[in-house]
Amino acid sequence: MTASVAPIRAGAPFPERELFGPGPSKVSSRVLQATARPTLGHMDPDFIDLMDETRELLRYAFQTENDLTFPLSAPGSAGMEACLVNLLEPGDTAVICRNGVFGARMTEIARRAGATVANVDAPWGAPVSPEAVDEALSSNPGARLLAFVHAETSTGVRSDARALAEIARRHGVFTVADAVTSLGGVPLHVDEWGLDIVYSGSQKCLSAPPGLSPITVSPRVLDAVKNRRTPVQSWFLDFSFLTNYWSGGGKRAYHHTAPVNAIYGLHESLLMLREEGLESAWARHRDSHEALVSGLAELGLSPLVDVAHRLPQLTVVPVPDDIDDAAFRAALLREHQLEIGAGLGEFAGKVWRIGLMGYGAKRSSVNLILKAIGDLLVRCRAEDVGASTV
Amino acid sequence: MTASVAPIRAGAPFPERELFGPGPSKVSSRVLQATARPTLGHMDPDFIDLMDETRELLRYAFQTENDLTFPLSAPGSAGMEACLVNLLEPGDTAVICRNGVFGARMTEIARRAGATVANVDAPWGAPVSPEAVDEALSSNPGARLLAFVHAETSTGVRSDARALAEIARRHGVFTVADAVTSLGGVPLHVDEWGLDIVYSGSQKCLSAPPGLSPITVSPRVLDAVKNRRTPVQSWFLDFSFLTNYWSGGGKRAYHHTAPVNAIYGLHESLLMLREEGLESAWARHRDSHEALVSGLAELGLSPLVDVAHRLPQLTVVPVPDDIDDAAFRAALLREHQLEIGAGLGEFAGKVWRIGLMGYGAKRSSVNLILKAIGDLLVRCRAEDVGASTV
Repeated sequence: MTASVAPIRAGAPFPERELFGPGPSKVSSRVLQATARPTLGHMDPDFIDLMDETRELLRYAFQTENDLTFPLSAPGSAGMEACLVNLLEPGDTAVICRNGVFGARMTEIARRAGATVANVDAPWGAPVSPEAVDEALSSNPGARLLAFVHAETSTGVRSDARALAEIARRHGVFTVADAVTSLGGVPLHVDEWGLDIVYSGSQKCLSAPPGLSPITVSPRVLDAVKNRRTPVQSWFLDFSFLTNYWSGGGKRAYHHTAPVNAIYGLHESLLMLREEGLESAWARHRDSHEALVSGLAELGLSPLVDVAHRLPQLTVVPVPDDIDDAAFRAALLREHQLEIGAGLGEFAGKVWRIGLMGYGAKRSSVNLILKAIGDLLVRCRAEDVGASTV
Repeated sequence: MTASVAPIRAGAPFPERELFGPGPSKVSSRVLQATARPTLGHMDPDFIDLMDETRELLRYAFQTENDLTFPLSAPGSAGMEACLVNLLEPGDTAVICRNGVFGARMTEIARRAGATVANVDAPWGAPVSPEAVDEALSSNPGARLLAFVHAETSTGVRSDARALAEIARRHGVFTVADAVTSLGGVPLHVDEWGLDIVYSGSQKCLSAPPGLSPITVSPRVLDAVKNRRTPVQSWFLDFSFLTNYWSGGGKRAYHHTAPVNAIYGLHESLLMLREEGLESAWARHRDSHEALVSGLAELGLSPLVDVAHRLPQLTVVPVPDDIDDAAFRAALLREHQLEIGAGLGEFAGKVWRIGLMGYGAKRSSVNLILKAIGDLLVRCRAEDVGASTV
């Protein structure tokens, strides 16, 4: 009848990190304080007003008029699953682009929904090829959708979402775009580009705590969901229920209990984005990135991704040959309270992912990062130390 | 390029409610402040320690030694779906008890997973009948699982989880128990009773913000999941991945980005539960309930559920014939900042659901509720007013 755990956190000072990895990004105290507001009931009229505001602010962030624009009550990976399983039925074909971890994840999810997947592969570090997509859609004339990652978090690459959406439209298939890392950091115009479903995450360029997945869904997709032959395999992710819950006007239908405090945080971060303006936020990410790249060059580090396809909010650099990746990052965290990201998948152990996202995308962050990495590189090399002693 | 929304929350005082509905329950300022701690990276060693502590504290709350005991990064409804879709494969039979909204929801989820469902129905307001379950399991000898709701949030009824688990074990089927409203409020002994999977919610008797679903899974179930003929239909909810993410020891495998700040809040609420002790928490819920029932009797209101099956944390009373349900609750909220729950499903418009859950289960809450309801009943009757003018 007793818990054997020692409450190591109780009373101890809570650690505070400089978050410059691939997300979560550093959350401002304004947003943190918003998450600590008193919890309202999920059907409280004041909370429903706040839901409506959140939807409107998300429409601005996504640059869309889509009615069904809302934060899914789960992380970006669940957002990815929601977008795929609402459109796909057993036997459907999905054309899925794969140039990093997240295209591979989409593939796995689509297969579990009973779809046949035709992959369009590009090398890690390169963008999706519009020509290859055009070809794949020509070879799969009955395909239901084209899915791709706008900003690949595993490689730091931006693909041309506008061009890909145009090709998909020409072939008459729906587009599903992963904008987890792009939303708020680089231009994204959902309506103008004709993207059908776009999902994102709260913890990247929006700088809200992780846990929510903003999603926007075109009316065309909702019609298609209504006309499915089979029910959506997931009750929790079914867009029909989510429409009644989020867009029900005065007559919201209970579906689940919304994560009230998490939505406070996202709402506050979206207010900050609107106050700044999207173009300013995009410019700020670009400027911070350029300053980072200049400074890294002085340290002998250069971005892996070609300048034409590089994400400003996530700079991927090869780990220097004479440096032990894991030991170096551990020392950065321990000595400088500074987090940068490790490589994932094919890039594990080979690259660092340095995120300047949302609230963290500013000159002072760049200085902090350059000073910490620079000092530690010098020390490692001077001491000629290996993994065990850094 | 502009958002048309007016930020009504910005600068305005944020409303604070007394939450005495069916959840979310009132969150203590200690827990709210915990959610506002600086966000850590989801792979930060300090956050991983906090994940381990959270798992250990949840084992105490569930009274289990199950290794896979963790908070799912989504609300209770997703927890329900996780538990069902990991066990069920197309063609399986599930025996599902239905005595309120949530048994019906389980049925729908199981069907979408391709299962055939045999329902064991009991009237709304009554518990699940062990005899009927025994009979249903006898008539469905190859059934994969028995699912039931321990504490029905739509009716305020407690079913005999121990007896039901014993019957299931005798028939060699897995038990899935919904403990969304029971965990922390009434005795629940997962290991002693032999429950195979139990899921709950953060926002009921634990009084953390809504958004997480604590789950515990027996090793027997994990073996069964490993031996499935088909992959689990949901990538996000697959227990094999979640085991690698939550129980991977020193070698956690990235699956999704955990909702870091939400977990801070849950962790703090679980610490509070352990400091108080489970038995004390259960006794506090019982005492508060008894005080509430005595006070309600003086107002002419009596619980709908038989005393033997009544949940202390959720008291359901019929709305008096001369009172307009919606107008009365709206006036309580507007004039007293006090939320009680409406009826759901069959009970819509007919009952009030008064929750004394977690942090809210105390004598001062009882006094607040009785004074507010008592005063408003007197005024309504004195003024002989209808819905439109209350």
